[in-house]
Amino acid sequence: MVESKRIVLASRPVGAPTPANFRTETVELAQPRAGEVVLRTLYLSLDPYMRGRMSAAKSYAPPVEVGGVMVGATVAEVIESRDSSLVKGDVVLAYSGWQSHDVVLASTVRKLDPDWAPVSTALGVLGMPGFTGYAGLLRIGQPKQGETVVVAAASGPVGSAVGQIARIKGARVVGIAGGPDKCAYVRDELGFDAAIDHRAPDFGEQLPAAVPEGIDVYFENVGGAVAAAVYPLLNTYGRVPVCGLIANYNATAAPEGPDRLPAFYGRILTKSLTVRGFIQSEFVKEMFPDFLRDMSGWIADGSVRYREDIVEGLEQAPEAFIGMLEGHNFGKLVVRVG
Amino acid sequence: MVESKRIVLASRPVGAPTPANFRTETVELAQPRAGEVVLRTLYLSLDPYMRGRMSAAKSYAPPVEVGGVMVGATVAEVIESRDSSLVKGDVVLAYSGWQSHDVVLASTVRKLDPDWAPVSTALGVLGMPGFTGYAGLLRIGQPKQGETVVVAAASGPVGSAVGQIARIKGARVVGIAGGPDKCAYVRDELGFDAAIDHRAPDFGEQLPAAVPEGIDVYFENVGGAVAAAVYPLLNTYGRVPVCGLIANYNATAAPEGPDRLPAFYGRILTKSLTVRGFIQSEFVKEMFPDFLRDMSGWIADGSVRYREDIVEGLEQAPEAFIGMLEGHNFGKLVVRVG
Repeated sequence: MVESKRIVLASRPVGAPTPANFRTETVELAQPRAGEVVLRTLYLSLDPYMRGRMSAAKSYAPPVEVGGVMVGATVAEVIESRDSSLVKGDVVLAYSGWQSHDVVLASTVRKLDPDWAPVSTALGVLGMPGFTGYAGLLRIGQPKQGETVVVAAASGPVGSAVGQIARIKGARVVGIAGGPDKCAYVRDELGFDAAIDHRAPDFGEQLPAAVPEGIDVYFENVGGAVAAAVYPLLNTYGRVPVCGLIANYNATAAPEGPDRLPAFYGRILTKSLTVRGFIQSEFVKEMFPDFLRDMSGWIADGSVRYREDIVEGLEQAPEAFIGMLEGHNFGKLVVRVG
Repeated sequence: MVESKRIVLASRPVGAPTPANFRTETVELAQPRAGEVVLRTLYLSLDPYMRGRMSAAKSYAPPVEVGGVMVGATVAEVIESRDSSLVKGDVVLAYSGWQSHDVVLASTVRKLDPDWAPVSTALGVLGMPGFTGYAGLLRIGQPKQGETVVVAAASGPVGSAVGQIARIKGARVVGIAGGPDKCAYVRDELGFDAAIDHRAPDFGEQLPAAVPEGIDVYFENVGGAVAAAVYPLLNTYGRVPVCGLIANYNATAAPEGPDRLPAFYGRILTKSLTVRGFIQSEFVKEMFPDFLRDMSGWIADGSVRYREDIVEGLEQAPEAFIGMLEGHNFGKLVVRVG
């Protein structure tokens, strides 16, 4: 019998999640049946979308039940296989959530090649976050040579992919990040044309100065005050792929007025903007093979860099997740479980 | 010497325009030079976008100067020509604004064939409003067979084009209009599948009942309370072409809170919506010939109907325009000038 240590949703958060919203349990897993494999989690991905799953509110995916295991992508080692496609020792991408072990159908996982790239990258630059940036930027943002692309959370796994791919496509790229260290990384390591600290008191002056020709593509992954500063700078026919709104995720009610919706909507009209929400899964079938080929090539030739923020131990996941929603991580947040 | 009676912008409105914002003048026109023609206005088009031109606020087109002639499309008769392309008696589409006569370059007008359709339709179903509906629906809305399309101001020139074209393309079409007469017209004359009165006390229940499979395309030309009722019913991958927001045009400041923007923006994300502002001029080069061919064919075979609301005399234009912003017109609002 294999035991799994798992973190479940103890209660739904009101506002920002707290450690009390999580609970650790240990359960015995069932024996694997034909076609199934037993997995030992090596890495757990922590991502902003998980905040949405903690709420009962209707969204694009069903919520985690209270008492249910927190969801999430994992990189895991096969420790027992009852399927011909996988053998003990194989490393796979799975979706086991916040737990140390799992029993799943072999057909639901994707085998990784550890010689190809560090396996943890399957959760970041070569996984869902990198693909979110790739698909949203290229399919919706469609940056043209010489256009200006702005992305927030620029040191994070989505933002850093967006900015570096936009650079490769010939755009001028401005990143927004929280604090001087992240800005220096975005500018000096990732090669963005400019990086602006949204916590700086003069952020509202720095942003227009950094985009003298306006903004053609704003890749939206934060919302809130950053979005409010960006929208007035969007050019006619500007495109806004919207993949996340982390600034809103802990809100408990509509903010106080004035109601900014009419002005926002009016700007969409007068500037002929395209604002397009998306979940990366929409584009997987059509674009994921191209993404893996392009992105691994860019990593190999040094034109795309990435950074991981690795936390040790499953028990650290709640605190790391809570901190991520405040912007405390620096790079792709991953928990080393095994 | 030809005299022109003209209505100029006397002052910029604060909130809803009043008759005091307009002033009538009579001026002597210059003699036409080589390449120019003298026009006598037959019909003046009144359209919601003109409210935007009365304001100094930055938009997609420059404002009318205080003291300047109110802008607008016109159908006019050539009463003198100094260009080989036109002769006295020709009828043309021009952009002379709210005035009885004008002198313009012949190259800036388009000759109309009075045998082809009543010339006033060049301001409505066969002109800018009809084209706005055609281009926005087909290029941005992209309705598929069996999908549900909702359009507001459904008895107006844009909305009636949108709904009838969507029906031709095989969509289920629900119109929203103000009052039982307009709703009956939309349903019985224009052949929409349903029509709902946004002034009805149970509008909020009638709308969901009329779209049992949700809404795939919402053609936005009003904003305000109608938009607020529609958005929660939009399906995943819903498309919203935004061509006008008449509900907001007389606003003097952002409305009181709560701030509905975060919830609106969140819905774009969770439903993977496409919200796309546009001005019809974007699509003229690419689509206008197709539009004229398609729309005149549909009118000829009876699959598209239209209605004009004709007001007699240029001096009635301010009052008619003010009423249109309140929804008092029924069909395309046109002033018979000559």
